[in-house]
Amino acid sequence: MSDIRAVKDALRRQHIETPSWAYGNSGTRFKVFPQRGVPRTPQEKIDDAAQVHKYTGVAPSVALHIPWDAVDDYAALAEYARERGVRIGAINSNVFQDEDYMLGSVTNPDPRVRRKALDHLLECVDIMDATGSRDLKLWFSDGTNYPGQDDIRARQDRLAEALSAVYERLGDDQRFLLEYKLFEPAFYVTDVPDWGTAYAHCVRLGPKAQVVVDTGHHAPGTNIEFIVAFLLREGRLGGFDFNSRFYADDDLMVGAADPFQLFRIMHEVVRAGGHEPEAGVAFMLDQCHNIEPKIQGQIRSVMNVQEATAKALLVDADALRKAQQDGDVLAANAVLMDAYNTDVRPLLAELREEMGLDPDPIAAYLRSGYLEKVVAERRGGTAAGWGA
Amino acid sequence: MSDIRAVKDALRRQHIETPSWAYGNSGTRFKVFPQRGVPRTPQEKIDDAAQVHKYTGVAPSVALHIPWDAVDDYAALAEYARERGVRIGAINSNVFQDEDYMLGSVTNPDPRVRRKALDHLLECVDIMDATGSRDLKLWFSDGTNYPGQDDIRARQDRLAEALSAVYERLGDDQRFLLEYKLFEPAFYVTDVPDWGTAYAHCVRLGPKAQVVVDTGHHAPGTNIEFIVAFLLREGRLGGFDFNSRFYADDDLMVGAADPFQLFRIMHEVVRAGGHEPEAGVAFMLDQCHNIEPKIQGQIRSVMNVQEATAKALLVDADALRKAQQDGDVLAANAVLMDAYNTDVRPLLAELREEMGLDPDPIAAYLRSGYLEKVVAERRGGTAAGWGA
Amino acid sequence: MSDIRAVKDALRRQHIETPSWAYGNSGTRFKVFPQRGVPRTPQEKIDDAAQVHKYTGVAPSVALHIPWDAVDDYAALAEYARERGVRIGAINSNVFQDEDYMLGSVTNPDPRVRRKALDHLLECVDIMDATGSRDLKLWFSDGTNYPGQDDIRARQDRLAEALSAVYERLGDDQRFLLEYKLFEPAFYVTDVPDWGTAYAHCVRLGPKAQVVVDTGHHAPGTNIEFIVAFLLREGRLGGFDFNSRFYADDDLMVGAADPFQLFRIMHEVVRAGGHEPEAGVAFMLDQCHNIEPKIQGQIRSVMNVQEATAKALLVDADALRKAQQDGDVLAANAVLMDAYNTDVRPLLAELREEMGLDPDPIAAYLRSGYLEKVVAERRGGTAAGWGA
Amino acid sequence: MSDIRAVKDALRRQHIETPSWAYGNSGTRFKVFPQRGVPRTPQEKIDDAAQVHKYTGVAPSVALHIPWDAVDDYAALAEYARERGVRIGAINSNVFQDEDYMLGSVTNPDPRVRRKALDHLLECVDIMDATGSRDLKLWFSDGTNYPGQDDIRARQDRLAEALSAVYERLGDDQRFLLEYKLFEPAFYVTDVPDWGTAYAHCVRLGPKAQVVVDTGHHAPGTNIEFIVAFLLREGRLGGFDFNSRFYADDDLMVGAADPFQLFRIMHEVVRAGGHEPEAGVAFMLDQCHNIEPKIQGQIRSVMNVQEATAKALLVDADALRKAQQDGDVLAANAVLMDAYNTDVRPLLAELREEMGLDPDPIAAYLRSGYLEKVVAERRGGTAAGWGA
Repeated sequence: MSDIRAVKDALRRQHIETPSWAYGNSGTRFKVFPQRGVPRTPQEKIDDAAQVHKYTGVAPSVALHIPWDAVDDYAALAEYARERGVRIGAINSNVFQDEDYMLGSVTNPDPRVRRKALDHLLECVDIMDATGSRDLKLWFSDGTNYPGQDDIRARQDRLAEALSAVYERLGDDQRFLLEYKLFEPAFYVTDVPDWGTAYAHCVRLGPKAQVVVDTGHHAPGTNIEFIVAFLLREGRLGGFDFNSRFYADDDLMVGAADPFQLFRIMHEVVRAGGHEPEAGVAFMLDQCHNIEPKIQGQIRSVMNVQEATAKALLVDADALRKAQQDGDVLAANAVLMDAYNTDVRPLLAELREEMGLDPDPIAAYLRSGYLEKVVAERRGGTAAGWGA
Repeated sequence: MSDIRAVKDALRRQHIETPSWAYGNSGTRFKVFPQRGVPRTPQEKIDDAAQVHKYTGVAPSVALHIPWDAVDDYAALAEYARERGVRIGAINSNVFQDEDYMLGSVTNPDPRVRRKALDHLLECVDIMDATGSRDLKLWFSDGTNYPGQDDIRARQDRLAEALSAVYERLGDDQRFLLEYKLFEPAFYVTDVPDWGTAYAHCVRLGPKAQVVVDTGHHAPGTNIEFIVAFLLREGRLGGFDFNSRFYADDDLMVGAADPFQLFRIMHEVVRAGGHEPEAGVAFMLDQCHNIEPKIQGQIRSVMNVQEATAKALLVDADALRKAQQDGDVLAANAVLMDAYNTDVRPLLAELREEMGLDPDPIAAYLRSGYLEKVVAERRGGTAAGWGA
Repeated sequence: MSDIRAVKDALRRQHIETPSWAYGNSGTRFKVFPQRGVPRTPQEKIDDAAQVHKYTGVAPSVALHIPWDAVDDYAALAEYARERGVRIGAINSNVFQDEDYMLGSVTNPDPRVRRKALDHLLECVDIMDATGSRDLKLWFSDGTNYPGQDDIRARQDRLAEALSAVYERLGDDQRFLLEYKLFEPAFYVTDVPDWGTAYAHCVRLGPKAQVVVDTGHHAPGTNIEFIVAFLLREGRLGGFDFNSRFYADDDLMVGAADPFQLFRIMHEVVRAGGHEPEAGVAFMLDQCHNIEPKIQGQIRSVMNVQEATAKALLVDADALRKAQQDGDVLAANAVLMDAYNTDVRPLLAELREEMGLDPDPIAAYLRSGYLEKVVAERRGGTAAGWGA
Repeated sequence: MSDIRAVKDALRRQHIETPSWAYGNSGTRFKVFPQRGVPRTPQEKIDDAAQVHKYTGVAPSVALHIPWDAVDDYAALAEYARERGVRIGAINSNVFQDEDYMLGSVTNPDPRVRRKALDHLLECVDIMDATGSRDLKLWFSDGTNYPGQDDIRARQDRLAEALSAVYERLGDDQRFLLEYKLFEPAFYVTDVPDWGTAYAHCVRLGPKAQVVVDTGHHAPGTNIEFIVAFLLREGRLGGFDFNSRFYADDDLMVGAADPFQLFRIMHEVVRAGGHEPEAGVAFMLDQCHNIEPKIQGQIRSVMNVQEATAKALLVDADALRKAQQDGDVLAANAVLMDAYNTDVRPLLAELREEMGLDPDPIAAYLRSGYLEKVVAERRGGTAAGWGA
C-alpha cells in the first residue's frame, strides 16, 4: 500500500481501546506501588481514558471490568463516557477474585460455585445490553496447581457447559471473546491454556464465539503472528489484548519488549484486511503499568500500535508477493524489513496535524497539566486498583 | 484399578511400535557417530525390531520410513516381518530430504514441487495398501526461516489442499496422523507448529484425520498431558511419537528426561481408556539414538513406557475422584503420587515371566550375543541412516 | 552407599529449614486466598513450624523474614523458639516492599534510597547477632522494566558497594547467601539474574559470601544440578531455597513438579558430600502455599526432600563410576535410575519409627487436631501474610 | 554522541569478521541443501570473504576453522588473504567431529581422547603463530545426553586441566575466547553451558582468557545485553559470535529475529566503549546460511551489525543519564527508543560513499556478477561444508 493517503486513511480508521483498569494502581505479587492522581471511581477512569483519546485521536472507547467498575446505572455511565468523547467498549468479566473461586469458577468441582460464576457472566451480558457493548471478554484463571488436583477432562466438560450457556444468552449483535493464557495464576494446568483450546470451544458454538489473542500469554518461542494469521484465515480472530513481555505475562507497554514482533503481527493483520473496522477485530490494550505513569503509558502504547500498523501498511505487497513467489528468500525478507526500518514518526505527526491534534501526543499531554490537576482534585477516597 | 490381574492384562494388551530408523545411524547436525552392527537394509532393521519384541513381548510392529525403507515388493517385506514375529506398522512419509523441498514440500510456492510432494504422499498410501498398514504419518518440515520469506496464510491454503487430497485417497480402514512440531528445521514459521493447527485441519476433513503427539515437539512449559486429555475428549488423538527432551527436539529415550511427565501423560490416557487397543491410539517410539546402542536403547524405551503405564493403571481412581470432588488439593495429589512412587518393576518382571519372557529384557538381550553376531555378519554395504 | 544403616544416619543428620512466611497467607497478583487458622504473630508462626519438626524430626529451624517477623526482642523470640523445640535459622532481608523501592533498593539511582536499603541489611545482621543466626539471605528484587530505564552497569557498581558494606559487617561465624532470580518483579533487567552474577560478586568478597540456589529462579531449560555441582566444586554453594515450578517462579511444593530433577540435584549434593552438616549447605524451603493447607504442605515438602535425598544416597557409586569410566552410557544411566525407581517410603517409615516418630507424618498431623485447635484459638487479629 | 562525524568515524573503525565456514554448505540434521558456486578450498572461501569486505568496507578479516581449513602452509594462506585485501582472523578449533569425541573431547573419561583433543588445541596455537592471529576460539560440544552418563564435576576438573594447558601455551599477544552454549549437540549436560561457567574458568586463568558471547546460545528469556554489560565491566568480554534465533541455536542472520535486541546489545557495548578497536572486543559472525545465498547473507549480516551500532551511537547519552538519574522511566525509555526508531540507512549510505563504496552493498554485489562467475568456475571438486 504505497499510497500515503491510503495509509493515513487506514490509520485514521483504526481504533485502539484502552482498559479502565490501566488507570488504577496495579503491581506484582510482591508489591503494588501506588501512583499519584489515580482515579477512585469508574467515572474518573473514564476521564483518564478520554485524555488518551484527546491526544491520540484513535482511542475512542474504554473497556470496563466488572465488578471493578460496577455502578448502579450503566446506561448513565455510558452517557457519562459519551459526554467526554468516548464510549464504553468491551465488558470484561471477573470470576477470579472471590474466595469461592480458589479452585476454579466455571470449572470448579462444586456446582454451587459454577452456578455463581455463570450468573456473573450472564450479568455481564445484561451490562452489555445497558452500555451497548458488542464484546464480552472471557478470561478464566481456572486451573490447578498440582497434578491430580482435579480432573482435566471433567473441567473441560464444565467449561463447555458454561460457554454454551453464555453463548445462548448473547444478543444478535453481541459476541464473546475467549481469552487463553499459558499459566498464572494456575501453575499446573490452565483450563484454557492456548489458542487451540479457545478455538475448539468457539468452533463448537458458532460465529459469535471468537478468540482473543493476548500478546503476553504464550509459551516462550511461540510464533504469535502465525496464530493471528491462522485465526484470521478461519474467521475466528475476535481481537487483541495488547501488551508486551520479556518473560511471562509481564504486562509491559505494547511494543516495548519486541517492536519487531508487534510489526510482524500487524503485518498479518493488514495482509488479511483485519485492520479495517468491518473485519471486527478489536484492538484493545491490556497492560498493567506498575512503575510508569498510567495515562502517559497508555498514550505511548496507543502510539506504538499505530507505528507498527503504519509500518505494516507501508509494506510493498506486490514486491513481497513477487519475491515470495520467486523463492527469493533474502529479497522477500528485505521487502518486509524495508518497511520495518522506515521511521514512520513523521508520517504519524502529519496525520495528527491533519486530524487537528498535536503532532506529539506525549508532549502535549505533559504540557496540559492534567496530571497535576487530578493529583490536586483526587484527594480522599480509595484509589482504584485491582479489586476496586 | 486396584486389581493386579486387571493391571497386568491391560499391560499385556498395550503394544508399542518401534521405528525402523531407530536402528540405523543418526546424530546431530554436528556429527553422526556411527555404531557397530548397524543394519544395511529394511530387512535387517526388521530383524533388529524383532529382537525388541522378542525380549519385551509388547513391541510387535515396526514403522517404516519412505523412501529410507523403500523396497520393490512391500507385500514381501510384510511377509518377511511376519516370519520374524512382527508386522509393518505406520508408514512415515518423507518430504524433507529432496533438494526440491528447500523452501517447503506441500506448502512450497512452486506448484511443481507441491505436486511432487503430494505424489509421494499418495504413493505412501499405495504402500499401506500393500503392507496392510492402518496409519500414514504426516510430518511436514515445511516452514520458513525469515519473516517475509513466504506468505503464512497462503501456505495454510496449500497445506489444506494437500491434506484434503490425501484424505480422499485413504481407504476405509486407513487414517492419517498429522504431526505438529514447534520448530526445526524451519526456524521462523513452521506450517504445522502446534496441536491447534493440526486439530483444525483434521476437524475440517473428518474422522480419518487424527493428531499425533510427539512428546518432544512443544514449546518450553507446554503441558502435554492437557493436550492429550483434550484430544482424547475430542476423539482426535491418533497416537504418540514417544521420546524425551530437556531442551528442544532432543530425541532421547522416552521417559529419560522427565519420567513424571510420561506418567502424567499415561494417566490421562488411562483415564480416558486410551490404552485399550480399541481406542485406536498408536503408541509409537520416535527416537534417535545418537550415542547409545540402538537395540538396547529401544528395549529400555519400551520398558519405560510400560512402567509409566503400569503406574498409571495403579492410580486409585475412586480415591482420586473423591479427593478431587472434595476439593482436597493435597489428598488428590497424594493419590496420584502414591501410584507414581510405587516401584512397578517387580510387577513387570512377574508379568514377563507369565508371558514366558525373561524378567529382565536388557540382561537377556545382552546375554544373547545378538549384537556381536550382527557386528560379525554385517560387513560391507552401507550402514542405514537418515537418508538411506 | 549400599549400607542402609549409613543411609539412615545420613538422613537423620540432614536438616531442612522451613520459612516463617510459609505459614501465613500468600497468593498471586490476582488474589490471595486466605486460609483457616493462619498465625498472626511471629510466635504463632514458630508454633506452626514446630509442628512440622514434631512430625518429621528433621526440620528443627525456622527462617525469619524482616520486617514481617519484626519483634522488639529477638533474643526472647529465639528463646521462644527453643522452648518449642526449634531454633531461628536464616534471617531474610526485605528491601522490596517499601514505596521507596519502586525503582530499586541497593541499586536505586537515588543515594538516599540506597542508604535506607543498606541500613536495613545491616540491621538484619544485628538481628542475627541477637538470634544466633549464621546466615543472612539477600534477595534483591532490584531491576528495571524497560530498556533504557536505568544503567545496567551503574547498577552493578551500586550493588557491589552495598554487598561490600554488608560483608564487612558480618561476624566471624556469619555468612550472607546471595540469591539470584531470572525475573519478577523486574521484567526487563534483574540486577542479580543468574548464578554467574551472584558467583562473581561473592568471589570478589571472600568466603563468607555464598550463593543460594532457589530451584524456581531459572530460565526454562536450565540444568540446575549442573549449577549445584559447579558451585560445590568452587566451594560457593551456601544453600538452597527449595520449591518447584512448571513455568516461572510458581512456588509449588518442592518435588511436586519434577521429582526426578530434585533427585538429580540431591545426587550432585551427595556426590560432593554436601548433605553432611559440616559442608555448610543450608537446606531451606521457600514456597508459597496459595491453595493448599500450609502446615500440611510444609510437612509434605520436607518429606519430598527426604525422599529425594534417600534415593540419592542409594545410588551405587562404585557401579556408577565404573560404567562412566567405561563409557557405557546406558549402564551408567541405569545405575542412577535404579536408585530413582526405588520406593524409599518404607525405609523412611522405618527411620521415623527408629526416631520415635509416627511413620506417616501427614496422617499423624491430621489426627492431632492441631489445625482445628488453632482455627478455634486464632480469632481476631490480622492473619499473617506478605507484608505482615 | 550527537556529532554525526564522530558517529561515522566510529562506524568506520568497527570491524566485523566473517567466518570461512559461512561460505560453505551447511544445514540441519534433516538436510543440507547444497548451494550454487560454493567454494571448494580455504582459498576460495577467502575469495568470497573478500567480496564481503569489498562491498561493505568493514569486514577485513576472515576466521578459519581447523581442520576444515587445514592447509600445508598457513603463512602462505595468510599471504593469499592479504593479497585479496583481507587477513586471517580468529582460529576456531574443532574437537567435535572425530569419532573419538562421541563422549567428549577434553572432558572425555578416556585420557587418550583428552590428550588427542588437547594436542589439536595446541596445534591451533601453532597455526595462530603462523597466521598472526590473536584469538583462539574454543567451543566444546562436550557434554552428556543422559543423567548419570558421566560425572559432572569430574568433567569440570578435566576441562580446567585442558584450559590451563592451552593458556600456558599462548603467546604474549594471544588470547583464547571461551564459548558457552546451553545445549546441542549435548542434550542433558553441556560442560560449558552458560557465561558463568566460562567466566569462572577464565578468571582462574588470567587476562588472556576471555569469554565470547554467541548470541544464539542462551536459554529462552535470557537477557543477553545484561551479560554483555557485566562482562565488559569485568574486563572479560573477548568478543561476539553474532547470529540470531527465534528458538534454539537457529543460526539465522544476525539481527534477523530480533533487531531490537541487537540494538540493546550494541548499546551496552557503546556505553562501555567496547566498539573501539582498542577495547579488544572481536565482532565476529557465526551463522549457517541454510537456505539463503551465502555471500549475500553475509553482506546483509554485516550491514545489520552496522545499523545496530549506528543506532546505539545515536543514543543521546546525556539525556539518557539525566532521565535515569531522575527516575523518569518513560523519558529514559523514550531516549533509547528515539535512537532505535531512527532510520540510519541514509547515514550509512553516506558513510559508504565517503569510503568510496557503493551506498547499497547488496545491489552492488548482485550487479557485479560474482556469483555467476564462481558458479561457472567452481566446477568439479567437493563443495566445502561442515567437515570439509
